Amino acid sequence: MIVVMKVGTPEAEINRLGSELKELGLTPEKIVGAHKVVIGLVGDTATFNIELIQEMSPWIENVLRVEKPFKRVSLEYRHGQYSEVVVPTPNGDVTFGPNHPVVVVAGPCSVENEEMIVETALRVKAAGAKFLRGGAYKPRTSPYAFQGHGESALELLAAAREASGLGIITEVMDTADVEKIAEVADVLQIGARNMQNFALLKKVGAQNKPVLLKRGMAATIDDWLMAAEYILAEGNSQVILCERGIRTFDSKYTRNVLDLSVIPVLRSLTHLPMMIDPSHGTGKSEFVLSLAKGAIAIGTDSLMIEVHPNPKKALSDGPQSLTPDAFDQVMQELAEVEKLTGRGQKELATV
Amino acid sequence: MIVVMKVGTPEAEINRLGSELKELGLTPEKIVGAHKVVIGLVGDTATFNIELIQEMSPWIENVLRVEKPFKRVSLEYRHGQYSEVVVPTPNGDVTFGPNHPVVVVAGPCSVENEEMIVETALRVKAAGAKFLRGGAYKPRTSPYAFQGHGESALELLAAAREASGLGIITEVMDTADVEKIAEVADVLQIGARNMQNFALLKKVGAQNKPVLLKRGMAATIDDWLMAAEYILAEGNSQVILCERGIRTFDSKYTRNVLDLSVIPVLRSLTHLPMMIDPSHGTGKSEFVLSLAKGAIAIGTDSLMIEVHPNPKKALSDGPQSLTPDAFDQVMQELAEVEKLTGRGQKELATV
Amino acid sequence: MIVVMKVGTPEAEINRLGSELKELGLTPEKIVGAHKVVIGLVGDTATFNIELIQEMSPWIENVLRVEKPFKRVSLEYRHGQYSEVVVPTPNGDVTFGPNHPVVVVAGPCSVENEEMIVETALRVKAAGAKFLRGGAYKPRTSPYAFQGHGESALELLAAAREASGLGIITEVMDTADVEKIAEVADVLQIGARNMQNFALLKKVGAQNKPVLLKRGMAATIDDWLMAAEYILAEGNSQVILCERGIRTFDSKYTRNVLDLSVIPVLRSLTHLPMMIDPSHGTGKSEFVLSLAKGAIAIGTDSLMIEVHPNPKKALSDGPQSLTPDAFDQVMQELAEVEKLTGRGQKELATV
Amino acid sequence: MIVVMKVGTPEAEINRLGSELKELGLTPEKIVGAHKVVIGLVGDTATFNIELIQEMSPWIENVLRVEKPFKRVSLEYRHGQYSEVVVPTPNGDVTFGPNHPVVVVAGPCSVENEEMIVETALRVKAAGAKFLRGGAYKPRTSPYAFQGHGESALELLAAAREASGLGIITEVMDTADVEKIAEVADVLQIGARNMQNFALLKKVGAQNKPVLLKRGMAATIDDWLMAAEYILAEGNSQVILCERGIRTFDSKYTRNVLDLSVIPVLRSLTHLPMMIDPSHGTGKSEFVLSLAKGAIAIGTDSLMIEVHPNPKKALSDGPQSLTPDAFDQVMQELAEVEKLTGRGQKELATV
Repeated sequence: MIVVMKVGTPEAEINRLGSELKELGLTPEKIVGAHKVVIGLVGDTATFNIELIQEMSPWIENVLRVEKPFKRVSLEYRHGQYSEVVVPTPNGDVTFGPNHPVVVVAGPCSVENEEMIVETALRVKAAGAKFLRGGAYKPRTSPYAFQGHGESALELLAAAREASGLGIITEVMDTADVEKIAEVADVLQIGARNMQNFALLKKVGAQNKPVLLKRGMAATIDDWLMAAEYILAEGNSQVILCERGIRTFDSKYTRNVLDLSVIPVLRSLTHLPMMIDPSHGTGKSEFVLSLAKGAIAIGTDSLMIEVHPNPKKALSDGPQSLTPDAFDQVMQELAEVEKLTGRGQKELATV
Repeated sequence: MIVVMKVGTPEAEINRLGSELKELGLTPEKIVGAHKVVIGLVGDTATFNIELIQEMSPWIENVLRVEKPFKRVSLEYRHGQYSEVVVPTPNGDVTFGPNHPVVVVAGPCSVENEEMIVETALRVKAAGAKFLRGGAYKPRTSPYAFQGHGESALELLAAAREASGLGIITEVMDTADVEKIAEVADVLQIGARNMQNFALLKKVGAQNKPVLLKRGMAATIDDWLMAAEYILAEGNSQVILCERGIRTFDSKYTRNVLDLSVIPVLRSLTHLPMMIDPSHGTGKSEFVLSLAKGAIAIGTDSLMIEVHPNPKKALSDGPQSLTPDAFDQVMQELAEVEKLTGRGQKELATV
Repeated sequence: MIVVMKVGTPEAEINRLGSELKELGLTPEKIVGAHKVVIGLVGDTATFNIELIQEMSPWIENVLRVEKPFKRVSLEYRHGQYSEVVVPTPNGDVTFGPNHPVVVVAGPCSVENEEMIVETALRVKAAGAKFLRGGAYKPRTSPYAFQGHGESALELLAAAREASGLGIITEVMDTADVEKIAEVADVLQIGARNMQNFALLKKVGAQNKPVLLKRGMAATIDDWLMAAEYILAEGNSQVILCERGIRTFDSKYTRNVLDLSVIPVLRSLTHLPMMIDPSHGTGKSEFVLSLAKGAIAIGTDSLMIEVHPNPKKALSDGPQSLTPDAFDQVMQELAEVEKLTGRGQKELATV
Repeated sequence: MIVVMKVGTPEAEINRLGSELKELGLTPEKIVGAHKVVIGLVGDTATFNIELIQEMSPWIENVLRVEKPFKRVSLEYRHGQYSEVVVPTPNGDVTFGPNHPVVVVAGPCSVENEEMIVETALRVKAAGAKFLRGGAYKPRTSPYAFQGHGESALELLAAAREASGLGIITEVMDTADVEKIAEVADVLQIGARNMQNFALLKKVGAQNKPVLLKRGMAATIDDWLMAAEYILAEGNSQVILCERGIRTFDSKYTRNVLDLSVIPVLRSLTHLPMMIDPSHGTGKSEFVLSLAKGAIAIGTDSLMIEVHPNPKKALSDGPQSLTPDAFDQVMQELAEVEKLTGRGQKELATV
């Protein structure tokens, strides 16, 4: 860390502060500039809180962090080696990681009834998806909107899992529900609105289940990685990071702005695998295919795509969901892009 | 609601959609424009979900809400009459509302030990605060930062309450802790990061305790009011809305941007009382006084101000907290501004 | 347009407003809802100003635009047919458009001296670029930063054009410089900071030169298309839209957020061709290749990539620029992605 | 400046970089940390470009600025003394500065005809305004919206000046118009969209006229002060900074978010006087009074308020403008708030 002192700080105060910093086990090194004095802190400052330092003296103008604020999620923590998240499913182990095929997670926003969820599972499996997504508990902006069927939907997900052999990814919204959901789900999802629900992060960190951590809609990369750090700090290192669009000044033509630059950014900062959700990212089904292609070309490890059978309203594809037929087509086109990346071949080789 | 159809929508589809809308109890009225057809929906659409309508036809270009999405929190729901939140404290009832004196809540970020919290309570009470704030459970970006003393801090808050007679406001972060905290707290605080933790909103909505609902850092006014609507929908209408700064493109000189325009905006939309938190809003103690003055001049019902005794480091005022001495001064200057608003006088009259 | 009236608007006022709207040549249609009255305006409202309508009555709550605010840039204006921008260069015509190969524009941020700009031009041409970019006039946040060599740099660009046969793209910042720059440049660039410099837009709209219009850093899609509409309204329809990253709440790891969703969004709204600038979009040369791949996979018509020879400092690649060697490699990898899109083949066919 | 080197930078490279930095006249001081080496740069780095340093070595991870990037606008440049902008008007000199009464600028968005502008001038003067605002050249998002009457409106402003004795503030949008406008205007306004139109900033910097510099809608405080620095660097130090609302994720109930925290922030950074524009900041006339009160209580030096006579449509107050009658009322209430600040008394003393 670098401590920048205000112009005119008395030397006695700089010395006092230096002594106090030494008590914390840090070695302060003073640089006397033309206008200002700056103190470099040598030592293990990664887990020090900036505010803690800042409160030490009213003469401190600014504290700049040179080390990254996260530790266990950092690429350096694994000496530059990427980690893999291996998830056992009825159809076999599925691996999320940069040296494995792109994993596609597909399914409806929420579980409506057994027929629809089993049918969707079979269709997306046939198209090549490895996981079924589907909400039992749904975060909704309005208390009057459908909140998910809850516990009974978990049984339907279990039925779909059995029928299709797909792994199940579903959202947890309350610490009280984690164990119950973990009985059915193969991956626990933390939604964007709960990304900094620290009680929930600690709870899933204490489970022996992989966690899909969605980025909050105004979360910086650091916020997001620190949220993952909560889970790893509790002992669970099976975390997949999922970008689902951020909130900006424009939401007229897309619900959010899908930040695809996170793919190389995360790759340079963390060993954890990542996922892109173009369905929530754009909120429009007609933009899903092109952005999914882009995400694969850029290097994502996995994708989450909303698919809804909507049998009764054959004309409709909804604002965000694809029909199973459209999804078939999407998967074929994505396979072409994936070939380019060299990922597809590797799986063939190991089969 | 207004349903805008795409250019070239077949008339048969418009008629089909009209029939389906009638099944929902709505009366569709068709306007045939130069290029487009628009359908006005007459009926109680406030609690209808926009997505639900949008999914009815692939020919729908857009659904525009004309009614507000919230109901119980709206000013219309109380026929234009503002509500008051009356909180019993050892020192007597304190009322939050537009026709009552500005209520000041003060105290440290987190409860450190009995001496500091009791001393702070006595000092802020002497200066005119009606509530003590202090975190027992702290939401922290980093898992390595101090997370609050938890349950043991609740006892210290109880001691400070007894010693000072102040009401206690403290944060709840987990549904599992709500009852325990409600035993000590006079007001339950939902923090910015949990504003859309819907499980938690429902839980506090089921308590018989006032709730302080902080605005999420990227929450729109509608998101925020819908979060309050969750609490009211569960039966608890004692909600105070607290602005604490939003996240924008600039955080160099202030941690957040304190959005003081919410004061007249909320007043025009909701009957609920409101609070402004300039300490979190700016993140700098030297900006607290001027923005607190502004908040009162604009019309806030209450203020939350961070105060920390910091006896050992007398030189320091920390980046965000005021010392008790500085707080004394702030309260005197705020009283001058409050006189202007005509609020102060009213209390004198009733004493 | 849809005019939403406030609750309780007197019927006389609605009738008065209706008459006034008829005077403007519009046909008002009234929908009486449960709580509100809404007036649909039938007629050519695309070029009507929302404020104009709003000021007609204090009883108007809101005016919602159903038609798009732009006209000449819209896809409908050309009946769904995409336009092409054909630019004559010494090496032959180069076409920007969805049915043509991806056009790559490359070069340094600013023109430093003849040797460097000619060398860069030859290198990027050899790698496959069709245009040389290079700033003669540079918009810089600081008045103390290098502002470009101005007029003398235009001669160097002319020399590079002659030596390489590449077309030249350079920025105009002042109406007074437009003619002078247009003598040398094949495409006039409007930078992000001048996207709403309407005097400049009108001036380039009156030239017979293609214009590259960069998106402002906080410009909505509508703002951007309206800026293009200014150019088309003056008679110049040769406009290319360039996304270069938007400003959000996070700029720690990338300078801006490159919004790749604009590719399908623009394709659905406008007939104009588009360009993506991953160098400014990320501000980091190491992220350029992956995001450029993504942009091609998603469907961009062209790319702008910063390349700097930096001969003296062989170790350095600068924060945002690629070396010519790195650019060679990038172009080879991009060609692979382009093959997927089917664009590459078409040019081969026409050669 | 602080240069942070990447983990594993060879010592030879650090030494090479050190030598190169010395050639620039800087004194590098090396701090060897646990993981990283950091180089503190001692010398006059305020006007150094961060990119220039960053490009010196590929081993540089980050360059952090410790000094502020601006110089002439900084409070330190005047040794902590605030500057005043004194504007001669027919009615006498008007002074903008922290020790002078709050100056109110009022008038319509654009000059429509002689009668309306003269009438407005007389009304706002009677209410206490010192300047008339009114657009001759209007920046409009749409090329089809009214663009102002241009040169002929300048004559009408001159007529209003003569009739009322008020100073005139009007916007310049093109370098070609500056001299012409400067003949009539007492203060030249640079609008939000042109805040980084550097050619225009240089041009007004070369005039002997005060400049009102509006904050760009996504401009950071540093961007804004650097834009002012352009004007001062050209020799014109009569600059007033005007906040008019920033663009955020929410624009439903207010057009922009008026950032009132800039008042104490600017006061801590710059000697220049400031203005707040609640009319553009909120876009709603009903919110103008309360936010104007807040701005004065927080400490603004001046206010800009939209007033429109709108005689033909007596019922209308427009979305953003006040009627002259409403403005009378506003001015009376603002005078009450100003008394609190102690500013009002001072003028009385000097009369």
